[in-house]
Amino acid sequence: MQALQPHLSPILIRKAVEDALLEDLGRAGDITTNATIPSDAKAKCVLATREDGILSGIELSRAAFAAIDFNLVFNAEKQDCASLSKGDVIATIEGNARAILASERVALNFMMRMSGIATYTAEFSSRISHTSAEVCCTRKTIPGHRAFDKYAVKCGGGSNHRFGLDDAILIKDNHIAVAGGVGLAIERAKAYAGHLVQVEVEVDTLEQFREALKATPDVVLLDNMTNAQLKEAVELNKQDNSGSVRLEASGNVNIDTIQAIAETGVDYISTSKITMAAPTLDVGLDISIR
Amino acid sequence: MQALQPHLSPILIRKAVEDALLEDLGRAGDITTNATIPSDAKAKCVLATREDGILSGIELSRAAFAAIDFNLVFNAEKQDCASLSKGDVIATIEGNARAILASERVALNFMMRMSGIATYTAEFSSRISHTSAEVCCTRKTIPGHRAFDKYAVKCGGGSNHRFGLDDAILIKDNHIAVAGGVGLAIERAKAYAGHLVQVEVEVDTLEQFREALKATPDVVLLDNMTNAQLKEAVELNKQDNSGSVRLEASGNVNIDTIQAIAETGVDYISTSKITMAAPTLDVGLDISIR
Amino acid sequence: MQALQPHLSPILIRKAVEDALLEDLGRAGDITTNATIPSDAKAKCVLATREDGILSGIELSRAAFAAIDFNLVFNAEKQDCASLSKGDVIATIEGNARAILASERVALNFMMRMSGIATYTAEFSSRISHTSAEVCCTRKTIPGHRAFDKYAVKCGGGSNHRFGLDDAILIKDNHIAVAGGVGLAIERAKAYAGHLVQVEVEVDTLEQFREALKATPDVVLLDNMTNAQLKEAVELNKQDNSGSVRLEASGNVNIDTIQAIAETGVDYISTSKITMAAPTLDVGLDISIR
Amino acid sequence: MQALQPHLSPILIRKAVEDALLEDLGRAGDITTNATIPSDAKAKCVLATREDGILSGIELSRAAFAAIDFNLVFNAEKQDCASLSKGDVIATIEGNARAILASERVALNFMMRMSGIATYTAEFSSRISHTSAEVCCTRKTIPGHRAFDKYAVKCGGGSNHRFGLDDAILIKDNHIAVAGGVGLAIERAKAYAGHLVQVEVEVDTLEQFREALKATPDVVLLDNMTNAQLKEAVELNKQDNSGSVRLEASGNVNIDTIQAIAETGVDYISTSKITMAAPTLDVGLDISIR
Amino acid sequence: MQALQPHLSPILIRKAVEDALLEDLGRAGDITTNATIPSDAKAKCVLATREDGILSGIELSRAAFAAIDFNLVFNAEKQDCASLSKGDVIATIEGNARAILASERVALNFMMRMSGIATYTAEFSSRISHTSAEVCCTRKTIPGHRAFDKYAVKCGGGSNHRFGLDDAILIKDNHIAVAGGVGLAIERAKAYAGHLVQVEVEVDTLEQFREALKATPDVVLLDNMTNAQLKEAVELNKQDNSGSVRLEASGNVNIDTIQAIAETGVDYISTSKITMAAPTLDVGLDISIR
Amino acid sequence: MQALQPHLSPILIRKAVEDALLEDLGRAGDITTNATIPSDAKAKCVLATREDGILSGIELSRAAFAAIDFNLVFNAEKQDCASLSKGDVIATIEGNARAILASERVALNFMMRMSGIATYTAEFSSRISHTSAEVCCTRKTIPGHRAFDKYAVKCGGGSNHRFGLDDAILIKDNHIAVAGGVGLAIERAKAYAGHLVQVEVEVDTLEQFREALKATPDVVLLDNMTNAQLKEAVELNKQDNSGSVRLEASGNVNIDTIQAIAETGVDYISTSKITMAAPTLDVGLDISIR
Repeated sequence: MQALQPHLSPILIRKAVEDALLEDLGRAGDITTNATIPSDAKAKCVLATREDGILSGIELSRAAFAAIDFNLVFNAEKQDCASLSKGDVIATIEGNARAILASERVALNFMMRMSGIATYTAEFSSRISHTSAEVCCTRKTIPGHRAFDKYAVKCGGGSNHRFGLDDAILIKDNHIAVAGGVGLAIERAKAYAGHLVQVEVEVDTLEQFREALKATPDVVLLDNMTNAQLKEAVELNKQDNSGSVRLEASGNVNIDTIQAIAETGVDYISTSKITMAAPTLDVGLDISIR
Repeated sequence: MQALQPHLSPILIRKAVEDALLEDLGRAGDITTNATIPSDAKAKCVLATREDGILSGIELSRAAFAAIDFNLVFNAEKQDCASLSKGDVIATIEGNARAILASERVALNFMMRMSGIATYTAEFSSRISHTSAEVCCTRKTIPGHRAFDKYAVKCGGGSNHRFGLDDAILIKDNHIAVAGGVGLAIERAKAYAGHLVQVEVEVDTLEQFREALKATPDVVLLDNMTNAQLKEAVELNKQDNSGSVRLEASGNVNIDTIQAIAETGVDYISTSKITMAAPTLDVGLDISIR
Repeated sequence: MQALQPHLSPILIRKAVEDALLEDLGRAGDITTNATIPSDAKAKCVLATREDGILSGIELSRAAFAAIDFNLVFNAEKQDCASLSKGDVIATIEGNARAILASERVALNFMMRMSGIATYTAEFSSRISHTSAEVCCTRKTIPGHRAFDKYAVKCGGGSNHRFGLDDAILIKDNHIAVAGGVGLAIERAKAYAGHLVQVEVEVDTLEQFREALKATPDVVLLDNMTNAQLKEAVELNKQDNSGSVRLEASGNVNIDTIQAIAETGVDYISTSKITMAAPTLDVGLDISIR
Repeated sequence: MQALQPHLSPILIRKAVEDALLEDLGRAGDITTNATIPSDAKAKCVLATREDGILSGIELSRAAFAAIDFNLVFNAEKQDCASLSKGDVIATIEGNARAILASERVALNFMMRMSGIATYTAEFSSRISHTSAEVCCTRKTIPGHRAFDKYAVKCGGGSNHRFGLDDAILIKDNHIAVAGGVGLAIERAKAYAGHLVQVEVEVDTLEQFREALKATPDVVLLDNMTNAQLKEAVELNKQDNSGSVRLEASGNVNIDTIQAIAETGVDYISTSKITMAAPTLDVGLDISIR
Repeated sequence: MQALQPHLSPILIRKAVEDALLEDLGRAGDITTNATIPSDAKAKCVLATREDGILSGIELSRAAFAAIDFNLVFNAEKQDCASLSKGDVIATIEGNARAILASERVALNFMMRMSGIATYTAEFSSRISHTSAEVCCTRKTIPGHRAFDKYAVKCGGGSNHRFGLDDAILIKDNHIAVAGGVGLAIERAKAYAGHLVQVEVEVDTLEQFREALKATPDVVLLDNMTNAQLKEAVELNKQDNSGSVRLEASGNVNIDTIQAIAETGVDYISTSKITMAAPTLDVGLDISIR
Repeated sequence: MQALQPHLSPILIRKAVEDALLEDLGRAGDITTNATIPSDAKAKCVLATREDGILSGIELSRAAFAAIDFNLVFNAEKQDCASLSKGDVIATIEGNARAILASERVALNFMMRMSGIATYTAEFSSRISHTSAEVCCTRKTIPGHRAFDKYAVKCGGGSNHRFGLDDAILIKDNHIAVAGGVGLAIERAKAYAGHLVQVEVEVDTLEQFREALKATPDVVLLDNMTNAQLKEAVELNKQDNSGSVRLEASGNVNIDTIQAIAETGVDYISTSKITMAAPTLDVGLDISIR
């Protein structure tokens, strides 16, 4: 089933956009514009892409213009998740010229990063669309942008891992070591967390994996394994658990390696590449002032 | 003269780090750690780089650990701007295990991005070190990270353009059009801005450039010109102004093109690549808990 | 397995406590104390309970005193989750008298509410300790106190439901109606959410329950069913799914009804009573100033 | 004279409601709704009470819906302070379905608590309506909710004590001890505070009370006295001061004891019960989506 | 009785000082210092006054230095409220040179304004010290500085009027007009406000004053009356109320008129001059760096 | 060329105005108005000046009313920078009476201070209008009001110096001492700062001035020099640099001395007097309620 289009709460957007505008306007505001453009000048603008890609962040762009002047008329021609071809018009904005010039950069900076992430995620996704695997992001995101980075990943057809330390359990080597073993760590996790919290455990050997399977976590993260090992893990899971434990692979994931990893049969492939190494998408504003 | 090492105000750092921790900890905190690591466990960690690069952001890392537990002992082995070789120890951290695990990701996320920018800037810089040109960043930065992105550029040997709309004048085509010409726009800018504000004007033809020179701005931004045009502009500036107007080039700047651009004799080469397309530097934390 | 003691992130605590102090101190501060107690007076205090109960919130209390004066010496005699008997000393505080008097009320207000919730939860818990059911809270909490209310529930031996709209899926009647049925709603949920998000569906008839079971959600919430219906649901789940779907009961839960509900065999019993109807625990500060 | 209906500043409301929404929406927003309800679905809702009571907090409810989508149409059928009978419609809300579902819980959580306080206060008030005494709240309120808790008390017909440490003087035993006696403490208070600040002193014996009367504070708080003592205090006040000092009783106040306390002739009876032990009022939202 | 020295809550100070530092440091910080002073340079400074006056704000100064570097050693030689003679050393500061230079201006700006207010208030005060009248401030203060401006007034020997719209009732002409008369307005005020709220009413004729006296407010504000009228009001108050209503004069108050106003026998003289027209006190920092 | 009228970003205004309203309304709001004015009363007001002066801050006034009730109709009769004669109507406001009364003081407090600064700056300006010198402000501004104070200076015809430590270099004695001389300090500054940052150096002898000229800073600040010295500096600058370095004078600047200073030929005269010693302009609101 096709999921509904992802959604960002307007209240989150408003807060982020206001902070960004305050950062850019500083104490004195847009002094170039104030010096050269009369306060009653009107402008008409076209927001368009200069590259092919996937759109993400249009509501942040709309909110940036509205935060400076809610009388600006912003018409979206495209919605988030849409495929863009070089030159496509994303939106038109019309109204007070000073207001548009003062919010332009913030409106673009969010959209450039988010569309860049969506576009790069879509590339990863396209390599594995013949498999049942999904590419997903990690907690390696830019501080302050977790919600936006993760939303952009969904726009690009990827899936989201945890949003923070608090919304799912992910047991790693240190937790296992202190707890006294994979099984004990999973038990401890289940005893602590509420019943609406998933428990995932990270393993890096098949031996650990076998031990983990016995404790029936919701997900196992297979870190830095070879594709052969991943295949064996998929097989073991089918035999022992009828495949009820979901498998996630991580480590050495990039645009060239992801296809082979997906073909091992794992369910999820997580990588920080899609959030931390995505080139921004080049979008720009053409403004005519009268 | 060698500039002193750049410096970030601790009060800016503290605020950013606290916001990032609140984002990552959410409402329930680090539930994996709380479930598996006793509250009195101690840890000893080594923060090391997994790639060659330039360090930037160590004080944000220190602050992230301190924000959770100011009794953690953080010893820096390297300072910002230092060259790192794969495997180099950046810092060691010792103290309460839960506190270290809860702040780890935030401490790394800032440093990975900032060191990535520093490292990428250094690559651009190295291509033009035989010239008198400097590479500099733009206002295309991640919202909320302007100060940190710009600081990282300096760590990498680059130079900083405006920090916001308010600290320098940058006259572009729209401003010129409304003001009624390059000369009038510059005059208006000087009339508006205080005497400690620089005035830069962006031109994209040599004709405009000649007109601009007459109005003696502090800097001219030569946008999207060929290297031949750039050379001619440098020459014209020498003739007309004894070179007193500084020249900045922008457009189509990348790691492959920057050397030839620098060799035209321009003073500054600005590019969003160093902030928006820099791959993060892979740094990690090895933790042993007892 | 006994879970580790719950933990609240110090950074969350600090923020909440500072806001509360600013609320109580207003613009002019503690004018009574400033008018009558010299700035160098010292005080010694005993924080004790005036009722039996379960302690929760001691770290907020400690933080309230530290926020006004970090030289105050706060010695905890009890830890959160401890059983308290009337008269038990919880902590002693020593230092500047003005600082102690100014922070007293905030330190107590948090602890009174949180210990009240812990104590009331423990009463609910004790009624069902002979079953495998756990009592858990809902999203009916006081705005701004979600994390603290939920933590207090854990201190009292209860379990936590979702912390917000974002960390788990809970499909209710409206979602089902629009999606076109229980099964379709669950499918849509799984297609949208990341793989670390649990999916729960609320049903209020056995017919809906049977339909839900087929779509294998992680949890089913049986709302407002009779105990006979609950028993039948438990039975059906065992037959159809080997009990792999977990069952939660809600509706008409109170201190008198919870035992019978638990004895039906459901896994979780959720109620807003423990957060919204818990009487505060009476704790007080005896101060001697010299 | 009947007082005008109490009023909460919209700017206070807006801030509290936004914080509460951010708390509930977390980073990912209302994922259940986003997964199952299309972005253009419309809903029509009825906000109604499921219990008899007194309404308080309708403007916070309105603001919660408006903060997510200011195009929602909110029609209030009842105003704060109104008596509600089980089933009464409080308001209807109409508009975008996702927006309504995302703000529902916050809109209700404020109203449930505030109406609970108003309702419980009204019960206390009704027991003493044949006397001239008024029931009033204390500074034992939930952190962050001082203004809302106090407003709700007024909706229920109660009166407000101090809003914080800064808006009135309340001299207690420690202040008296350090100042060197009741009289000296009152003198010190008057010397420190501005002329628009009332001075109240707390006493727990009639001996102290007599001493206090001589120093003519504005109010005396008679703490933990028997009703016989309270009567004697009322009498003494009439004799010595023509009753010009107002008397407040506190300690052991509950729904059963308040009538007898009021009949002693005191002017105010303060109790934390009305803010800290008030059960929430059960209000709910019936939603139909099309 | 001499009042204790006024006191500002450290938590209020911290917040104000941090905001001010962020304002001054902007995004790039103290670039002059960073460019010229090595990070390990040490400085020793003397904070001294260049004019006679009354000190106010030393704790904000201390907090400004501490916010940048809590290892700076700040030794106060004078306390707030102290009389200063030109050249007097107020404090010495020692430690990291960059930290001192970066916080200097903020530390001085607060102190200059607050000491200016204290000094100017003391001048007003000295003109009326032979009477029983006190000079007091109004709500005409700089936005964001209410608490500090009012504290400074107390340092200068003045008294404080309301801190905001919420901590006392001040009935003016519009309130009277709508309520239907002075008496009705006072009645309404008493019916609305809690028992710890004072009620003051502003009148501008003796006729209104007589009407006001009958309703026994706590204070009457005699606005823009001649000194002859003020004397008559004082007399009327003695006759009708044994002087129990306190009298405040306002309007045309300045350093030259205040003595005659005070000699009419009024209790308080309020003026915005002491907060809005006080020249700042010139204090400076002499720094030696090694 | 006449500069365009200065402009303040609406997003800066909104934030400042909201903070100021929260400060004034406290926890309980405008209790006088709530007690006496029915919630549906309407008011019509005239905002007028009671003194001659220059208007500044009208947009903050508009925003203060809008923050409480965006249905209030605010009609500006004058714009910032306009000359006002005693009695001139600045704006009319119409709408809900409670909303107007609750925002009145904040709306006026900003405007009184800002118009005071504009008016006082204009007086300084008028004394030097026959010269080419401009009067400019410093960083001695009220914490939190930097942007507003500097904007007001521009409204009064003055010019702005740095807005913070970060937007221009100003080298003072300590920086020079540590750097090892004026020339070295300027070199260090240029090496550190970006190319859009001006470099100014402060000197207090002609000897230092000569040394400074050689290092060609953008501006030299001549501190505490006699007018004869200033004239000599102007002359030296013409000879050595064709006057390309701009000269700023500071020290002992007041309304009486500024003319003679300007006549020495310096370009800028900076003084904290215009921000720190400007008397507020008396503006008031006449309200009629029906």
